[in-house]
This record gives sequence, structure tokens and C-alpha cells, in this order.
Amino acid sequence: MDQGSDKIKTVVTIYNQQYTVVGNERSEHVQEAATFINDKMKELKRSNPSLTGTQLAVLAALNISNDYIALKRANEKDED
Amino acid sequence: MDQGSDKIKTVVTIYNQQYTVVGNERSEHVQEAATFINDKMKELKRSNPSLTGTQLAVLAALNISNDYIALKRANEKDED
Repeated sequence: MDQGSDKIKTVVTIYNQQYTVVGNERSEHVQEAATFINDKMKELKRSNPSLTGTQLAVLAALNISNDYIALKRANEKDED
Repeated sequence: MDQGSDKIKTVVTIYNQQYTVVGNERSEHVQEAATFINDKMKELKRSNPSLTGTQLAVLAALNISNDYIALKRANEKDED
């Protein structure tokens, strides 16, 4: 799948900052992920206004990781 | 599963900062997610030393979101 070339470049805006993502992910998938994180950070900021940008991003990452690990674990169970 | 009480409190350290996570996730799962993010941030820092903490955390979140969305999409395909 990854041929090591023809990387896709996507520019996304998260929490008012631009990020250039270069990889094999299709642009619309990267945009979807960016929207997901941006929404999580804004939601966290609303309930915890004193958090810094780094703290918001880390907590958003933690939320998403928990979801990801739970889904992976559920998949592994299905395969038993 | 969520009874709205008996929330689990877990303290994790990510990128030299402590975070207290309160929720329904078991502590070892939260710790696993925290290690995952910490490793991603350190890995990103090695290849991009000029990035700030917020940028590292956002990019780590983006990486994890991409993996999560890809896994969800694969699951949905299986159900067709």
C-alpha cells in the first residue's frame, strides 16, 4: 500500500494553528481527523477554561486513544 | 456500563506533565493510552526538534485519530 513516494500533503487548521501533514492518508481522512481533534479541544476548553493549548491537545489525544484502544480490544475479542 | 457514579481517577504523566483523568476507563487502559501518546510525542520531537508542546500533542492526536478512523472504517466495511 505504501510505495514510499507520492505522499499526500494536507494542510489542516487545529485550534487556530495550521499543520501540514504529509503521509499516505487521503486528504479527506486527515481533514476528518483534524475536525475531530479540533472539536474535542474546544469541548474540553468549554468545561475547563484554564487549560493551556498543550493540556487541551494532550487530553484530546487521551480521549481519542481510549476510544482507539477500546475498539482494538473489541476487535481482538471478536477474533477469539 | 456507565452508572454515572464510581468514576475511576487515574493520574498519568505525559511529556513531563501530570494529568488527572476521571472517567469510566480502567486505570490500566488510561495508562496504556498515556504511554502511547507520550511515545508518539517523543518520536515526533526527535524528528522535528523545533515543534512546541502543543504542536507535538496535536500531531500525536492527529496520528492516533487517523489510526482510529481507519480502524472504524475497516470495521464498517466488515459489516456490509
